[in-house]
Amino acid sequence: MHPFDHPAVTRLIATALEEDLGRGDVTTAATIPAECPAEARITAKAALTLAGLPLIERVLQAVDPNAKVSLRLGEGTAVEPGSVVAEVWGRAAGLLMAERTVLNFLQHMCGVASLTRRFVEAVAGTACTIIDTRKTLPGFRLLDKYAVTQGGGTNHRMGLDDGVLIKDNHISVCGGVGPAVRQARQRASALLRIEVECTSLEQVGEALAAEADILLLDNMTTRDMRDAVQLVGGRALLEASGNMSLERVREVAQTGVDFISVGALTHSAPAVDLSMAVSPQT
Amino acid sequence: MHPFDHPAVTRLIATALEEDLGRGDVTTAATIPAECPAEARITAKAALTLAGLPLIERVLQAVDPNAKVSLRLGEGTAVEPGSVVAEVWGRAAGLLMAERTVLNFLQHMCGVASLTRRFVEAVAGTACTIIDTRKTLPGFRLLDKYAVTQGGGTNHRMGLDDGVLIKDNHISVCGGVGPAVRQARQRASALLRIEVECTSLEQVGEALAAEADILLLDNMTTRDMRDAVQLVGGRALLEASGNMSLERVREVAQTGVDFISVGALTHSAPAVDLSMAVSPQT
Amino acid sequence: MHPFDHPAVTRLIATALEEDLGRGDVTTAATIPAECPAEARITAKAALTLAGLPLIERVLQAVDPNAKVSLRLGEGTAVEPGSVVAEVWGRAAGLLMAERTVLNFLQHMCGVASLTRRFVEAVAGTACTIIDTRKTLPGFRLLDKYAVTQGGGTNHRMGLDDGVLIKDNHISVCGGVGPAVRQARQRASALLRIEVECTSLEQVGEALAAEADILLLDNMTTRDMRDAVQLVGGRALLEASGNMSLERVREVAQTGVDFISVGALTHSAPAVDLSMAVSPQT
Amino acid sequence: MHPFDHPAVTRLIATALEEDLGRGDVTTAATIPAECPAEARITAKAALTLAGLPLIERVLQAVDPNAKVSLRLGEGTAVEPGSVVAEVWGRAAGLLMAERTVLNFLQHMCGVASLTRRFVEAVAGTACTIIDTRKTLPGFRLLDKYAVTQGGGTNHRMGLDDGVLIKDNHISVCGGVGPAVRQARQRASALLRIEVECTSLEQVGEALAAEADILLLDNMTTRDMRDAVQLVGGRALLEASGNMSLERVREVAQTGVDFISVGALTHSAPAVDLSMAVSPQT
Amino acid sequence: MHPFDHPAVTRLIATALEEDLGRGDVTTAATIPAECPAEARITAKAALTLAGLPLIERVLQAVDPNAKVSLRLGEGTAVEPGSVVAEVWGRAAGLLMAERTVLNFLQHMCGVASLTRRFVEAVAGTACTIIDTRKTLPGFRLLDKYAVTQGGGTNHRMGLDDGVLIKDNHISVCGGVGPAVRQARQRASALLRIEVECTSLEQVGEALAAEADILLLDNMTTRDMRDAVQLVGGRALLEASGNMSLERVREVAQTGVDFISVGALTHSAPAVDLSMAVSPQT
Amino acid sequence: MHPFDHPAVTRLIATALEEDLGRGDVTTAATIPAECPAEARITAKAALTLAGLPLIERVLQAVDPNAKVSLRLGEGTAVEPGSVVAEVWGRAAGLLMAERTVLNFLQHMCGVASLTRRFVEAVAGTACTIIDTRKTLPGFRLLDKYAVTQGGGTNHRMGLDDGVLIKDNHISVCGGVGPAVRQARQRASALLRIEVECTSLEQVGEALAAEADILLLDNMTTRDMRDAVQLVGGRALLEASGNMSLERVREVAQTGVDFISVGALTHSAPAVDLSMAVSPQT
Repeated sequence: MHPFDHPAVTRLIATALEEDLGRGDVTTAATIPAECPAEARITAKAALTLAGLPLIERVLQAVDPNAKVSLRLGEGTAVEPGSVVAEVWGRAAGLLMAERTVLNFLQHMCGVASLTRRFVEAVAGTACTIIDTRKTLPGFRLLDKYAVTQGGGTNHRMGLDDGVLIKDNHISVCGGVGPAVRQARQRASALLRIEVECTSLEQVGEALAAEADILLLDNMTTRDMRDAVQLVGGRALLEASGNMSLERVREVAQTGVDFISVGALTHSAPAVDLSMAVSPQT
Repeated sequence: MHPFDHPAVTRLIATALEEDLGRGDVTTAATIPAECPAEARITAKAALTLAGLPLIERVLQAVDPNAKVSLRLGEGTAVEPGSVVAEVWGRAAGLLMAERTVLNFLQHMCGVASLTRRFVEAVAGTACTIIDTRKTLPGFRLLDKYAVTQGGGTNHRMGLDDGVLIKDNHISVCGGVGPAVRQARQRASALLRIEVECTSLEQVGEALAAEADILLLDNMTTRDMRDAVQLVGGRALLEASGNMSLERVREVAQTGVDFISVGALTHSAPAVDLSMAVSPQT
Repeated sequence: MHPFDHPAVTRLIATALEEDLGRGDVTTAATIPAECPAEARITAKAALTLAGLPLIERVLQAVDPNAKVSLRLGEGTAVEPGSVVAEVWGRAAGLLMAERTVLNFLQHMCGVASLTRRFVEAVAGTACTIIDTRKTLPGFRLLDKYAVTQGGGTNHRMGLDDGVLIKDNHISVCGGVGPAVRQARQRASALLRIEVECTSLEQVGEALAAEADILLLDNMTTRDMRDAVQLVGGRALLEASGNMSLERVREVAQTGVDFISVGALTHSAPAVDLSMAVSPQT
Repeated sequence: MHPFDHPAVTRLIATALEEDLGRGDVTTAATIPAECPAEARITAKAALTLAGLPLIERVLQAVDPNAKVSLRLGEGTAVEPGSVVAEVWGRAAGLLMAERTVLNFLQHMCGVASLTRRFVEAVAGTACTIIDTRKTLPGFRLLDKYAVTQGGGTNHRMGLDDGVLIKDNHISVCGGVGPAVRQARQRASALLRIEVECTSLEQVGEALAAEADILLLDNMTTRDMRDAVQLVGGRALLEASGNMSLERVREVAQTGVDFISVGALTHSAPAVDLSMAVSPQT
Repeated sequence: MHPFDHPAVTRLIATALEEDLGRGDVTTAATIPAECPAEARITAKAALTLAGLPLIERVLQAVDPNAKVSLRLGEGTAVEPGSVVAEVWGRAAGLLMAERTVLNFLQHMCGVASLTRRFVEAVAGTACTIIDTRKTLPGFRLLDKYAVTQGGGTNHRMGLDDGVLIKDNHISVCGGVGPAVRQARQRASALLRIEVECTSLEQVGEALAAEADILLLDNMTTRDMRDAVQLVGGRALLEASGNMSLERVREVAQTGVDFISVGALTHSAPAVDLSMAVSPQT
Repeated sequence: MHPFDHPAVTRLIATALEEDLGRGDVTTAATIPAECPAEARITAKAALTLAGLPLIERVLQAVDPNAKVSLRLGEGTAVEPGSVVAEVWGRAAGLLMAERTVLNFLQHMCGVASLTRRFVEAVAGTACTIIDTRKTLPGFRLLDKYAVTQGGGTNHRMGLDDGVLIKDNHISVCGGVGPAVRQARQRASALLRIEVECTSLEQVGEALAAEADILLLDNMTTRDMRDAVQLVGGRALLEASGNMSLERVREVAQTGVDFISVGALTHSAPAVDLSMAVSPQT
């Protein structure tokens, strides 16, 4: 199912409109004739990567079921400032009421896609894949993870229920990496691989011995990561993690790790600028 | 009603947990004994301004109704890296399941408060007030606007229904600033003031003539804003708006405008770093 | 957004049908062939003012998505007994199941509009406007306030969040009209005017001194209201309030107050009589 | 289950608060200290019959979970003007935010109970029972029907699913009273009696012949009702219906019918006056 | 209202899809092109009675609004293994995502209908009617009861609110069958008959004396039931109940009881086998 | 999170009560004093395995928040007929209203656990594990899967989002087992293993070559399964599937497959008999 068709996203759209409209748009009600038709143009005001365009129609039609949207560009496209992204037709009142909510969605999702693309480009030519984390904004898990894919990134697990990732807290309770991995292997679904967080080469060794499938190298130095790659020698997949910046990410990718996970993709992507200009239809 | 008590926030917390937990935390289920007690400490890893602490208890108790939270610092406090923000007790499994959701809320809200504080400090000593916009993340209207206040900012209208703000689109349909303001005055609630967006000194004059209560000076040069302040001479309140940066904001404040609205406070505040360390209770 | 499109009204319609239908209409199921087509006519059985007609289609189509409605008269029209308001086509079973709910909505909303019209006519020729209150039936805030407008009345604030109205309780905690008004001016949104309830001419004076925008004259004698109008001399808007009857309202209007608010419009409007006659289609 | 415990009523309370509070009470937020304690007294301002008192606590605690309510009088009591109905303690802000919603519920429900009591008293001494109809306000089915019982009335069916009542529309499709009753008997649940609407003595005869359990005499003259009672001779129960007024109801009761149903009890009961005075706690 | 149109069923469909799809079908997403069209055929793999076919379209269209369904056979039909029940067209991805949910509904509902039919056939030729109970699966009250009717059975009361059935527990509190029946007659709606559970011939006598309308003979021997039929002599309807098996049910029917209620129809009907074969459309 | 704490189960309990209670229990209202206290005992009437006991308290307290439950036996226990499972105290009215819903949950869940235990015992001593399928009743995914674990079974994937299982339909679109597996490996989350359905030894070979992690042997003969085990030689896990009966399951387990999945555990488990006897408390 496309995330835009998921009931959680349908509910988020309704929530967004309800919190902005409240009991109605008093300015528009006072100044715009109810049936006045209009058209609008959504334009990128900066260089950015598109994500979330199908939301335009969903938001608009929640306000004006007869509104029409024509997308001019495709999801995942990198566009220049000034590019017209979409054209819209409907009642002027409806367009004005939906405008802010449409833009709030787009500016955030294109922001996530655009930042992701910069990380992906930073590791271009290596065998390393940029992946996201669970550090998404509450309510945005599906949309943020989708936006990452539009920027060329790949998704890590979607939630706590579709992947085993043993972290330091689990390890300390279980009494070590080995016992934790073995316990997980025994009790978790046979359809899931086991990933385990390692903060030292010693733990990497233990995890390998316990036959973990994926190792997360947490906050290691680049040198330690290089050693870990060598130590593992292909017996497990490797994920590097911990405050990755655009400056450092290529160096990390070149150590030979399979994945680099970047929380900032979803928790700190600045909004990118798009506008929606509404004009009465003649 | 405190925003944390608002049903919309209660629903957002439930949504956040549902999207992260899905059918349950398979790692914790496989590695942590169901009844194992634990304590946790939430710590600021960077200098930041606190906002959203009451959410800690609300999120945790949705997972473990018997969890206890002791806040060590107050909302709105500016803290140094390493400061312990809160201590938590509960079942280890519950703390681990709630950890990411707690942090996702806090990192975003403290991010908004922290960025706001920087803008507020940038205009310190002037008579100008930093205010927010409706450029909030879908679902976060109440929380983002609350976080702004914890950073020392002030809220603009909450939605389209509790303030009249006539924008360029309304003006073009109504045939000018004057007709638009007069129409709004006649049709909108007597309890509401009328704010109107002006992009030129000419429009400022029209708005004054139509007896608008507040003028929004949109994307004007600092010099034009200074002229507008003079032209208005106290007959209306003035709000400056349009891609305000930390660098420019003080200069704008010194023109004498009453308010500067900054979209970035809520649409582009980067997450700030907090951690939650869980340890089995002895 | 038209109130009929607001999600709160959509939910109220669903609630109304669910509470009447429960698990289904056992009489209709036992006596009416499932596919039997029918037509129905909704008729005013008394002189009344129409409000709520668009709900007919929304209620019917919730039961029979293929039902059709043709409105014969417009919202806000004052009609004579016997006037056909609307014609309806659909499955007989659907019309019978929706009948009571359709009428329960219409009889109440037309009741509100009809009573409002009588108050509006009672002050015809004066400069005074009849407004409503927050004394609406739980669940009916949007619909009751809309019905008032169809009867020629004007809406006061929609809720506690879109207007400042300082009442006796607030005043007593703040230590007087003056402090209360000044505190509100300082802390409330710059987009909101300040209204304050006054029960004596003395309080009127204090409110003026504190630069309140609107004064609510609560339960004053007509003579006191006349004095208040004089005292204020156009420096604030004036609202008269307190058990206004059709008999007294004109006299109050003639004092020169700007608004008279009438709780009875929404809390005590008797239902007006409409019928829906269903006949099998030939 | 008591109606106040029914999920539909819980939802109605939440709806009522949401539509009144919106994003919060701006006046109270600006003028009342957050933690200021207060007490309040709910007083009857007119002679009335009490119904809905348990809602006071439910509404208040939705806003302030620590609020306390002490009821001074019992449901169904007829009280004099000035009687203190309940005392309340809580945060001043919470009491002020809940005040209007509490009163909107009480004024309506006590209104229904009070009007019912007048009808019940009008037939006192006869064997006739006053019953309600399905002409309740959308959302209020359970509460309105409960209020009727507190006024001494009795409930007719709760909805379309818990009683068979064959009306003129069903009769015309089925080709007569006899076929309609027989069809209902055959298809409806064996646990339900069959009631049928009769508009003439001839139809009364047909209904009796078809062994209907209850006959609804619709809009008949008092004389015709008297004849119907005689004709039926105890072989079925009799309900009289059709625009019953307080003036006429006793005469109808004296014909010997078992029930008189009165739509006005729930669709046209005027609100009765109650007040809630809040004072800061010393 | 048809049960398939009831909001409770709409919600159950949404719930069923949400619990199966979670955040999406990862297998289909990875292996099936998003727009690939397909057709599917739903086939009975065993002899069974059809119930629930309209759900196919409702489930499919919740996933793919453009999916089309053509039913080849009607509700209530008894079919042979290999019969094609329905044909379906839509996007392959949608059909694959909906497949399991469609079948989970059909296999259960056809299971209920098929078992019912066997009981109905077992009493064929007697005057006795097979009825169901409230022993339905949580969430399936409407669907299970509907499936019973498609197997030729008849519904007992739908819930606790549309029929009076006095059980042993009520009797013991009231102090006997007689007082319990009389109390119910006095307090319950005049539109409801009174049924009472009897476990001995003595209680049958008491119930008759109290003028109960229906007697439920609970766990009696066939001989006692025969005696009860004679004792009652048509003065009340009789329902037999208590672990009825296909082997015994005819013997019970021949005692002359009017109804036999069978809990197993809804609590223990095994799923019947249906398949849905999807093939890419050429 | 324990399934009983999952919001989906909370909603199912509310749904179950609403569909049974409707507007209230008319029998109990008419015959049981509102405040009469009572105790009840839940007893197994047959040999069965317990599952779902924590639901007793959750259902009861939804009706009577002060009800108390004392469990006498633990989840997963195999009990003899006559065993007292739980004791309950509360208002008689509450216990009677909740009784049927409590039992409907328990009889189904214990039924699933009891049938599972028989399959588990049938393979005792082999290395084979009994697992469930997605053939659960709509709304019961979490509860049915949990009941399987209480009977000693193990869960397969919970939904379409937490495991990759390539079925015949996916294979035919992708053009063979090999391409399908490779495509899944490339596109699905690195945290997920790949399972693929094979209907012939040839497909087993292709799946091995494509490095699938788990092979599902669908509807194979026991001999073919034995050959598949040999062919695979430990390079992948093996799941046997397809109409497994208690008679055949041991023979299949002895082939050396790792898992046998049984749809009947959840789609065809007959209810097991439990009773709840309520008696007024002295």
